[in-house]
Amino acid sequence: MNKTTLIECHNRIKPFIHNTPVLTSRLIDAMVNSKLFFKCENFQKMGAFKMRGATNAIMQLSDQQKDSGVVTHSSGNFAQALSLAAQSLGVKAYIVMPSNAPQVKKDAVKAYGGQIIECEPTLAAREKTTKKIAQGTGAIFLHPSNDDAVILGQGTACVELLECYPDLDYVIAPVGGGGLIAGTALAAQYFGNNCKVIGGEPFEVDDAYRSLISGVIETNKTTNTIADGLKTQLGDRNFPIIQQYVERIIRVTEEEIISAMQIIWERLKIVCEPSCAVALAAVLKEKHLFSNKKIGIIISGGNVDLGELPF
Amino acid sequence: MNKTTLIECHNRIKPFIHNTPVLTSRLIDAMVNSKLFFKCENFQKMGAFKMRGATNAIMQLSDQQKDSGVVTHSSGNFAQALSLAAQSLGVKAYIVMPSNAPQVKKDAVKAYGGQIIECEPTLAAREKTTKKIAQGTGAIFLHPSNDDAVILGQGTACVELLECYPDLDYVIAPVGGGGLIAGTALAAQYFGNNCKVIGGEPFEVDDAYRSLISGVIETNKTTNTIADGLKTQLGDRNFPIIQQYVERIIRVTEEEIISAMQIIWERLKIVCEPSCAVALAAVLKEKHLFSNKKIGIIISGGNVDLGELPF
Repeated sequence: MNKTTLIECHNRIKPFIHNTPVLTSRLIDAMVNSKLFFKCENFQKMGAFKMRGATNAIMQLSDQQKDSGVVTHSSGNFAQALSLAAQSLGVKAYIVMPSNAPQVKKDAVKAYGGQIIECEPTLAAREKTTKKIAQGTGAIFLHPSNDDAVILGQGTACVELLECYPDLDYVIAPVGGGGLIAGTALAAQYFGNNCKVIGGEPFEVDDAYRSLISGVIETNKTTNTIADGLKTQLGDRNFPIIQQYVERIIRVTEEEIISAMQIIWERLKIVCEPSCAVALAAVLKEKHLFSNKKIGIIISGGNVDLGELPF
Repeated sequence: MNKTTLIECHNRIKPFIHNTPVLTSRLIDAMVNSKLFFKCENFQKMGAFKMRGATNAIMQLSDQQKDSGVVTHSSGNFAQALSLAAQSLGVKAYIVMPSNAPQVKKDAVKAYGGQIIECEPTLAAREKTTKKIAQGTGAIFLHPSNDDAVILGQGTACVELLECYPDLDYVIAPVGGGGLIAGTALAAQYFGNNCKVIGGEPFEVDDAYRSLISGVIETNKTTNTIADGLKTQLGDRNFPIIQQYVERIIRVTEEEIISAMQIIWERLKIVCEPSCAVALAAVLKEKHLFSNKKIGIIISGGNVDLGELPF
């Protein structure tokens, strides 16, 4: 995954994604005494950066593989992203979802043309069902985050951000499965001008923070966080990239996440997921690090249940 | 107020306002079988289109008048707009607010440098206090909507929209005090290509709808609407413009407003006020009128209390 493969990936997916806008706020800048540039992937197709990785992953398949379709198990944004990306590319998508997934998420997958296969709400059942579908249909399994093509795709958000603002000192992204932060780190390495990448992670699911300390992939015993997009786990494809290129990870409390989310909604006037707010929460928490710097923030997505807001 | 005065107004205020983005949504388009272009004044400075009119009104004053400052009575967006516009232009702003105005609104006015004078929460007290301030300080009274300079300023949102999309068939705006819809109608008249302007108004405050029928300015006995920006009343400066240039007004129920607001938040991923949703609600209600048309929607503002959402 060098600079050329990242450029090629970006050119490949461009016709199928939005170059999302970058927003700024004088009032938030004043809060942190620095200049913040929010890359708004909540305005991405299907509402999240995952559209980028899903599109690239499908486009990297051979024609024969595309004919067989793709399969994943997800109840979150990757389910919708793979469905819409597959639909855009004329490929069949099988989405394994736990039977207790919210109806609104099932409806979204269906609206984007994904074929849902329900299973028991356990990881074992999800993996078993996915394997069965793959064997029965020949569909190719695509992982939401631990896949080189997905990592490269997610990195294109930061590529676009640096195209607009080449002299950012930092880019901050939330850390969940690790695809976004790894792709962001590659983009900053290849396109930044000494641009450092920092991750934001909830204390409640701080597997990446602990993994960087121990040098091996750690797991979370519990995942009691409002940032539901960040409950997933690092993988062996993205962890080495994070180890090599991510400066550090800043952990934040649930209260800090909700407070940062409210600031984004009130000041930027955008709807974003709690997961995105983790990046701003990290900057607010460690203001002294960022004083008088130019900082990119990846707003990862905007698919939120308006009936369950924390404020 | 001819085409030249509108162009001059736009050039005058440009350095002090944002040319706000226009958003679209494939999914909302599919709902109405037409193409919608949302002009996002929620991203305007201080969060609403009122910044445009307030800026123009102050800039039209003589230097001597500017030295005396400006005064208005408002507990809504015009209070914040006049405060920020005055601050940007180095002018003093006195804001008469009812003593029971929410603290968050008082804080916003203060943050923008406005000087608050509290009064009893009645219209009579507001007008009396405003008059006293004007007499005591020499400050010039500026009305939030019934003022030619304000009307022209508000019209510049539609000017920018038509600069991007010159062939819109319709532009829809909410109707409150009448400044926005009157300015929008002038802009469509001067810059559109046979572009019709339609107003959206809550049944609960349908004074403009009834005024167009009766030919005189009607009032509202009650104002029980969630669209709190639309409780105000038409005036003698904007009503004749509305009579001449607004095609019709579509009335919507409170349920229709809330439903349209939810669609905007979920699909466009933006935070907007209930008042803006009235325009989309009007399109959703009368779909047959708008089939296969290109329609601009003015999203008027985004200053909403996140603790009091209707969903």
